[in-house]
Amino acid sequence: MAVSREGETESSHLAQTVEETTRPTFAESQKNTFDQFSQTLQTQRRNWVLNVPEPPGLFSKLKTIFSPLENKLHCIGKQPLPALISILKTIFPPLSWCKQYNVTKFKSDILAGLTLASLCIPQSIGYATLAKLDPQYGLYTSVIPPLIYSIMGSSRDIAIGPVAVVSLLLSSMIQKFEDPAVNPAAYTKLVLTVTFFAGTFQAAFGLLRLGFLVDFLSHAAIVGFMAGAACVIGLQQLKSLLGLSKFTNNTDIISVLTSISKSMHTWNPFSFMIGSSFFIFILFTKYYLARKHKKLFLLSAMAPLLSVILSTLIVFLTRADKHGVKIVKHITGGLNPTSIHDLQFNSPHTAEAAKIGLIVALIALTEAIAVGRSFATMKGYRLDGNKEMLAMGVMNITGSLTSCYVATGSFSRTAVNFSAGCETAVSNIVMAVTVLISLEFFTRLLYFTPIAILASVILAALPGLINLSEAKYIWKVDKMDFLTCTAAFFGVVFVSVEIGLLLAVGISFAKVILNSIQPGTEKLGRLPGSDLFGDVNQYPMAMKIPGILIVRVKSALLCFANADFIRAKILDLALEEQNEDAIESAEDRVQLVILDMSNLLNIDTTSIASLEELHSELESNGMKLALANPRWHVIHKLRLAKFVKKIEGRVFLTIGEAIEACFTSKNMHASSLTVV
Amino acid sequence: MAVSREGETESSHLAQTVEETTRPTFAESQKNTFDQFSQTLQTQRRNWVLNVPEPPGLFSKLKTIFSPLENKLHCIGKQPLPALISILKTIFPPLSWCKQYNVTKFKSDILAGLTLASLCIPQSIGYATLAKLDPQYGLYTSVIPPLIYSIMGSSRDIAIGPVAVVSLLLSSMIQKFEDPAVNPAAYTKLVLTVTFFAGTFQAAFGLLRLGFLVDFLSHAAIVGFMAGAACVIGLQQLKSLLGLSKFTNNTDIISVLTSISKSMHTWNPFSFMIGSSFFIFILFTKYYLARKHKKLFLLSAMAPLLSVILSTLIVFLTRADKHGVKIVKHITGGLNPTSIHDLQFNSPHTAEAAKIGLIVALIALTEAIAVGRSFATMKGYRLDGNKEMLAMGVMNITGSLTSCYVATGSFSRTAVNFSAGCETAVSNIVMAVTVLISLEFFTRLLYFTPIAILASVILAALPGLINLSEAKYIWKVDKMDFLTCTAAFFGVVFVSVEIGLLLAVGISFAKVILNSIQPGTEKLGRLPGSDLFGDVNQYPMAMKIPGILIVRVKSALLCFANADFIRAKILDLALEEQNEDAIESAEDRVQLVILDMSNLLNIDTTSIASLEELHSELESNGMKLALANPRWHVIHKLRLAKFVKKIEGRVFLTIGEAIEACFTSKNMHASSLTVV
Repeated sequence: MAVSREGETESSHLAQTVEETTRPTFAESQKNTFDQFSQTLQTQRRNWVLNVPEPPGLFSKLKTIFSPLENKLHCIGKQPLPALISILKTIFPPLSWCKQYNVTKFKSDILAGLTLASLCIPQSIGYATLAKLDPQYGLYTSVIPPLIYSIMGSSRDIAIGPVAVVSLLLSSMIQKFEDPAVNPAAYTKLVLTVTFFAGTFQAAFGLLRLGFLVDFLSHAAIVGFMAGAACVIGLQQLKSLLGLSKFTNNTDIISVLTSISKSMHTWNPFSFMIGSSFFIFILFTKYYLARKHKKLFLLSAMAPLLSVILSTLIVFLTRADKHGVKIVKHITGGLNPTSIHDLQFNSPHTAEAAKIGLIVALIALTEAIAVGRSFATMKGYRLDGNKEMLAMGVMNITGSLTSCYVATGSFSRTAVNFSAGCETAVSNIVMAVTVLISLEFFTRLLYFTPIAILASVILAALPGLINLSEAKYIWKVDKMDFLTCTAAFFGVVFVSVEIGLLLAVGISFAKVILNSIQPGTEKLGRLPGSDLFGDVNQYPMAMKIPGILIVRVKSALLCFANADFIRAKILDLALEEQNEDAIESAEDRVQLVILDMSNLLNIDTTSIASLEELHSELESNGMKLALANPRWHVIHKLRLAKFVKKIEGRVFLTIGEAIEACFTSKNMHASSLTVV
Repeated sequence: MAVSREGETESSHLAQTVEETTRPTFAESQKNTFDQFSQTLQTQRRNWVLNVPEPPGLFSKLKTIFSPLENKLHCIGKQPLPALISILKTIFPPLSWCKQYNVTKFKSDILAGLTLASLCIPQSIGYATLAKLDPQYGLYTSVIPPLIYSIMGSSRDIAIGPVAVVSLLLSSMIQKFEDPAVNPAAYTKLVLTVTFFAGTFQAAFGLLRLGFLVDFLSHAAIVGFMAGAACVIGLQQLKSLLGLSKFTNNTDIISVLTSISKSMHTWNPFSFMIGSSFFIFILFTKYYLARKHKKLFLLSAMAPLLSVILSTLIVFLTRADKHGVKIVKHITGGLNPTSIHDLQFNSPHTAEAAKIGLIVALIALTEAIAVGRSFATMKGYRLDGNKEMLAMGVMNITGSLTSCYVATGSFSRTAVNFSAGCETAVSNIVMAVTVLISLEFFTRLLYFTPIAILASVILAALPGLINLSEAKYIWKVDKMDFLTCTAAFFGVVFVSVEIGLLLAVGISFAKVILNSIQPGTEKLGRLPGSDLFGDVNQYPMAMKIPGILIVRVKSALLCFANADFIRAKILDLALEEQNEDAIESAEDRVQLVILDMSNLLNIDTTSIASLEELHSELESNGMKLALANPRWHVIHKLRLAKFVKKIEGRVFLTIGEAIEACFTSKNMHASSLTVV
């Protein structure tokens, strides 16, 4: 191969030098030359290993995270105008597609936006009641945030507005500090303050490029958490569906079921009938009609709105509200009022509001980025997580100033938006304007809307949050991930939303720790017909080399937590092999232990002490320790700790070279013996 | 090499088959044969990678920890007598050396034991006052635990008894629940209960083979913690040395200094004079005389006892106690009384006692195993951590029943034992008997011993706990470890002992997490003259291969916390390379991205989703993704997730093979073009 030539020229030069100095018989000189050559090559390669440049420190690692920002700032200094345009395009992604926008695309967006609005209006009202806010807050949240997002966000499919999980999170966490039943105004103010904090955190994450924070909820944890949240939300809806008046504030399944069984005598059969019949209608259109006949997709998207209109008419005509069917009653219409003065930064709950804001910010971002990315991949464009976070942050900060609570990308509505054929974020604008018009003119028409129908709208959206096939897949591929998933699920269902989250994150990180410090070792053998070495269990055809034990640490870190265990294990392995070999033949006794360090990313001072102990223990048992393929930080630290000197420089680039070096010294030893 | 023959015979057989079927010209057939051969070899190797056996699950991993125990139980069934003897030898290590024991060794042990006792008596009394117990409890603790350890422990050098750090830990944590000044009896009972729990935990760790728990305190953390504890202990001694009467219960430097400055007017100059002059005397013998003249070692070991005797005489003769010099007064003499009825398992503090017991158990074990192992390595024998834990546990349980508080191996006294020439654990027995005799007959003589002299004995032992050269070494080798070290130190000195410990453990594990999920990638290049690939930064001589990007993940786990970041980074790298290459020549555009998975120990479902996303993103940019050298669990999960199918089986054993496969398909593509 082309790349190996450099080494060859060097070696031929060396061969000449050797020939000039010695001049033995031709055959001898050839052999000598070859030996010398291979030895020089080996020395050269060992120099590569030993004389590495100093690895980058902690500071330069941090720097790489911010380098894109730095480059941009650097560009402004050089070429102000093009750099400014590029920055504007970064902040306002629509600038990059607005030139290609045309009437056809606009038509598609209008259709998608109207479809979205028809689903969004009943859902927004429902989610507002789930968040224990007045219904208009849900509608407000479907106006301002989508407008901001559509000029700052880069996703073309996502549908912005209130979502079920965030609404549940808000009500379950905030009602501990302000009871919405006792003091609804203070509760609303606290929700708005939390929204402001959530937006600030999101924007800060985006600016500081902390996008990776969203990744701390693993895929498995999200699947479990979402399913658990869906169950909890479903249970909460039973109150409205059954028309109960008393209900627990807890969200866990046991409290809810006890509460229901206690107040079951107050249930209202009319509420239940209206709610459940329309629930079946929505499910039927969504899961039967829309799947059978693609053309009926619009009907299924409109079904919630249709249900609201029909049920409102029914209640209005029959005056069922006089028979105990709870209705929405007055919804404050008109534009979003300002809420700057509702934000509370001096209340006793401000610290709590910030904490809740952080949790809500992360959950909202996780949902939005998950949904945004899956549709972006489908259409073949890229989403920048940090940019999305900034857009979400600005939209929620603005929202908190205009009476909106936390908005994010909704799973169910984004799917509807996509299916309705949206082209750009303009569909969000169409939706926002439609909701705004409804707020202005049609809120009075919702006076007789039964609360039960809102419950059935929410219930119908829940199956989309439960992903059984994904859970099955997780079980099949990764049992530990499945544990995270079930822990999140049961934590949410049986204890509380926060505990579920905490369990999921805790187990995920415990898994990382266990995986990285697992004190395993594996014996390596040579793969037949190659110079490769593999785990003898993974590759049963790998062959042992007599007199040599090759071990690899089954961990990326040799550190305080596993170094001593691994030291003891390698020593045991070596002594065991020595005993076994001693029975077979004395010559093949293990004399060399090669530690393959190729997958050790880092070591610490504790582990260097363990290696030193291993070295002296092996020496006292007549074995030598050699290292193969240490990585950058590892060899750097070993050199600083003078460990390389202690093992007389037995550090090699490959296992093969370590073996060769050992054979050479053994043969030399043998020949010196015969000569004597 | 010998091992490659198998592959060769197979290939010649194959070559024959090929020749029979086609029969072209000789040169052609040779080339074809070779191509076919190398292809078959490649297929075979890829089968090795893809058709691995199922990796062991979680359960079998746990099983390996207990396998030694299982083997032993299995042996009993087969050969009862030899197995029983081996078990007895395991439990009572002296059985294995008692046959070789002789008079010479016994003489050495007696000398060492007497030296040890002379140091141990003043230290024990001092540490008991540090633990806020009556002085006799320190002496009791130097009798029973050393006796038990000498028949169960396997270290021959360790000196067992009360130690400074554990005494400090006990008093600082227990006095929160019972004030020793207000209710000394209840306080003592709580200390004994904590001792019982500590012993139980230690024995349980030993039996359950949880020896690795001790490793959770990294070397760096211990260095910092010990130095911090030494400072705190030194500060505490200022009370006795200055003869102050009022003193804070807090251990942090700020509280202690404030407290001293407040009550400085009550200081007693006589106390200070006696204490400090003997402190200087002890230090002088220890650090000057003993180092200059090896023969004076005995004097330095005896210096504390001499100081006690001299100062007691001085106080007795001058009746300095009437001038405010605090004296020990009455010490209860006689044998250890039983304390079974002092253990409290129904008190309101039992849960706290268990918690403190756990912390103390771990700290005591850490100190004992560290000191025991360092001397074992020096003399060339091995210590089994689990066995040591069992011995320590039994000794502390027995201790708690006989009025002893937590005992462990002492740094300073072990060094003295070693220097005095101890041969076996018999020196501990000699020491225990000597202490017992003193308890029986000489406690009355200590009536006039000034408290200040105990403080100076403790103070003189502290420099041994501060290891500056080790701290320097840690700074040089590992900056992050140094952070752990300083955090432990400042935590202990400025806040409290527990906070220091917590900080050290917390930072250590945070470091593990950061190291294992760091979202780094590195570009690989071919090392000149070899088929090896290395990080282009670590090996600046490594060369890029045109048209191919080779990346390795700088982490052992591709998991929820870093998968997405890494996916984005690899994509960016690939697009960047493509753009660069496009300027140079269109032919050399990156078409293949090889992901070297050799150091990925595990993946999870989140990361598989990220890999799928990466694959489709690369495809849409005209690049293909190939994997090289995936490990056992990784390839197993990728197969289960059907990812191997998605990338059309482009999984190879080595990077070289992946490149070759790509070149072959490229050439074939080129030739088919020319033919058309």
